[in-house]
Amino acid sequence: MLDGVARWEPGARERLQAAALELFATRGYEQTTAAEIAQAVGLTERTFYRHFADKREVLFLGQQQFDEGFRAGIDGAPADAAPLAAVVAALRSAGAFFPDERRGHSRARQTVIDANPSLQEREQHKLAGLATTLGAALRARGVGEPAATLAARTGVMVFVIAFAQWIREEEQRSLTTIAEDVLRELGALVEGVGLTSSGPRG
Amino acid sequence: MLDGVARWEPGARERLQAAALELFATRGYEQTTAAEIAQAVGLTERTFYRHFADKREVLFLGQQQFDEGFRAGIDGAPADAAPLAAVVAALRSAGAFFPDERRGHSRARQTVIDANPSLQEREQHKLAGLATTLGAALRARGVGEPAATLAARTGVMVFVIAFAQWIREEEQRSLTTIAEDVLRELGALVEGVGLTSSGPRG
Repeated sequence: MLDGVARWEPGARERLQAAALELFATRGYEQTTAAEIAQAVGLTERTFYRHFADKREVLFLGQQQFDEGFRAGIDGAPADAAPLAAVVAALRSAGAFFPDERRGHSRARQTVIDANPSLQEREQHKLAGLATTLGAALRARGVGEPAATLAARTGVMVFVIAFAQWIREEEQRSLTTIAEDVLRELGALVEGVGLTSSGPRG
Repeated sequence: MLDGVARWEPGARERLQAAALELFATRGYEQTTAAEIAQAVGLTERTFYRHFADKREVLFLGQQQFDEGFRAGIDGAPADAAPLAAVVAALRSAGAFFPDERRGHSRARQTVIDANPSLQEREQHKLAGLATTLGAALRARGVGEPAATLAARTGVMVFVIAFAQWIREEEQRSLTTIAEDVLRELGALVEGVGLTSSGPRG
């Protein structure tokens, strides 16, 4: 059935996504209905619901691929890589999912999310899911606790901060470059408070 | 009006909270209504809604005091304290809001939240709000970006990991002690990947 739908309506999902983002941005998320999104691209509400559980999920499609982008980096890191080094590999791997040409789309999506508390909650939940995925990938490599959870959450934190910078209008650097700069900043912060064995004790 | 309510129904809010937690745990969060919570302590549904916007908010009362507990630590840190040192002060300050006798209540609340995706989303949102508060407090001290956001989010991350450990059945350490141990672990992780100026470059 879904195969049939895909044959008859090529790119329906992507067209619905683009129309939704446009309508959310111009009319407001709460004020836009699934029927209006479908209508904007000449499809029916029923077709909309074949592709998305509800209008919110239009903004959160592809969580699995998103998680997999990070996870592939961890799984591909050398077996003897330190936990946070594996996370750095995850950030580099995920960066490939956010090429510069996607910056505009990502910025528009984030603007809609930032304007709606319920969407912010959903986004936080998605990021918590990513941290869970990364923590599991690290534990699968033999990393213990709390190191696995801590390294996983550090990776998500660095991603979130780098992503917010990446979608700024004036920003030119790639997401991966920004993430590496944020990680270095974290290193400086941790060093500043004497938490490493080589630094002074706080 | 609210003063009057408080006089006639001493401790109504706390009784409703305790009853709600009990019902959420035994019957399930979705299956429990505001009217049932009120009834369990001999109050009316109307009284319930004088205290809480909805049943979800029973679990999220006191966000402002929660945030203030952290913020007081940052505001009280020496003017020349490094950003993450101010965050350590915030964690110590917040620890006072979670004395050991609250461990059982916190554990019961978390069990309810962990079982309900919508509550998890709300909890993530609350923690994101805390990160915003801490970031603002650091910027008010003259900390720049991305250091302020990074230090604030690091503080929240450490709190979340320490809190999850604190409510484990077998755990005996205080929340503050656990948080300090998690911070040391973070120092070791960061050192391991050579992100500090004194460590090897990754």
